[in-house]
Amino acid sequence: MRAMGDLEIRRATAEDLPAIVSMLADDPLGAQRESPDDLSVYRAALERLDADPNQHLVVAVREDRVIGTLQLTVIPGLSHQGATRALIEAVRIHADERGSGLGSLLIEWAIDTSRQLDCRMVQLTSDKSRTDAHRFYERLGFSATHEGFKLRL
Amino acid sequence: MRAMGDLEIRRATAEDLPAIVSMLADDPLGAQRESPDDLSVYRAALERLDADPNQHLVVAVREDRVIGTLQLTVIPGLSHQGATRALIEAVRIHADERGSGLGSLLIEWAIDTSRQLDCRMVQLTSDKSRTDAHRFYERLGFSATHEGFKLRL
Repeated sequence: MRAMGDLEIRRATAEDLPAIVSMLADDPLGAQRESPDDLSVYRAALERLDADPNQHLVVAVREDRVIGTLQLTVIPGLSHQGATRALIEAVRIHADERGSGLGSLLIEWAIDTSRQLDCRMVQLTSDKSRTDAHRFYERLGFSATHEGFKLRL
Repeated sequence: MRAMGDLEIRRATAEDLPAIVSMLADDPLGAQRESPDDLSVYRAALERLDADPNQHLVVAVREDRVIGTLQLTVIPGLSHQGATRALIEAVRIHADERGSGLGSLLIEWAIDTSRQLDCRMVQLTSDKSRTDAHRFYERLGFSATHEGFKLRL
């Protein structure tokens, strides 16, 4: 948990699910693949997240309103001399808060937390259509050194 | 564990570390970042992997020789209606076995295992310099839909 001014970044709970899913769906890509009217699948997923100590699903909250979310996964590994890495997924900022700097605060939280957890690398993928996001991550120090491959099952 | 002809894909153990690290180092990128003469850091990393039930570090073995390795991470999540995804990392094939089809068998093992573990997506990133690997993943059904960002800490 971290407080920044009146902003708090803390672990997500079941009470936060409506707000999180609403943000996941409020997006050109997310609108096609989320079901905010049926939260049961998200509740089951939150239980899987809570059962895994390497998962850190957080929300950014200001004045009791959930205005951002991000999932950080800690991944041990052998390569890079046994380096643990961190993976960022599902970054979303409430539409009212975009451009406010909240995205940077969330990613900086993720980077700081990764460092505290002895991760040697932070990684993420971003859909090739999200060109604004790519500039955003480059400003934060990330390099687009890799191709990101996906296969739906 | 799965046997294919005389090939077996099974969970990696501490006894496999010299062979795995040798493969990690036998690579234009890996040569600069691995330390095969000091296995202690890899032993500690293997303990972290073994402690995490969502980690599947495997080796491909033929006639008692380790000839391939791959790490599969199962990642629960909220997006895509609570979809769990799988991440493939650290794919290596012994130099003597490249072009033998072993890489395809390993990735197909990872895809099948991901399906059995109810994952709805398999993802991986590949350094932009590894253009042969990109064609290989596309032949196996993957699409390079994402930019892969990395930040070293």
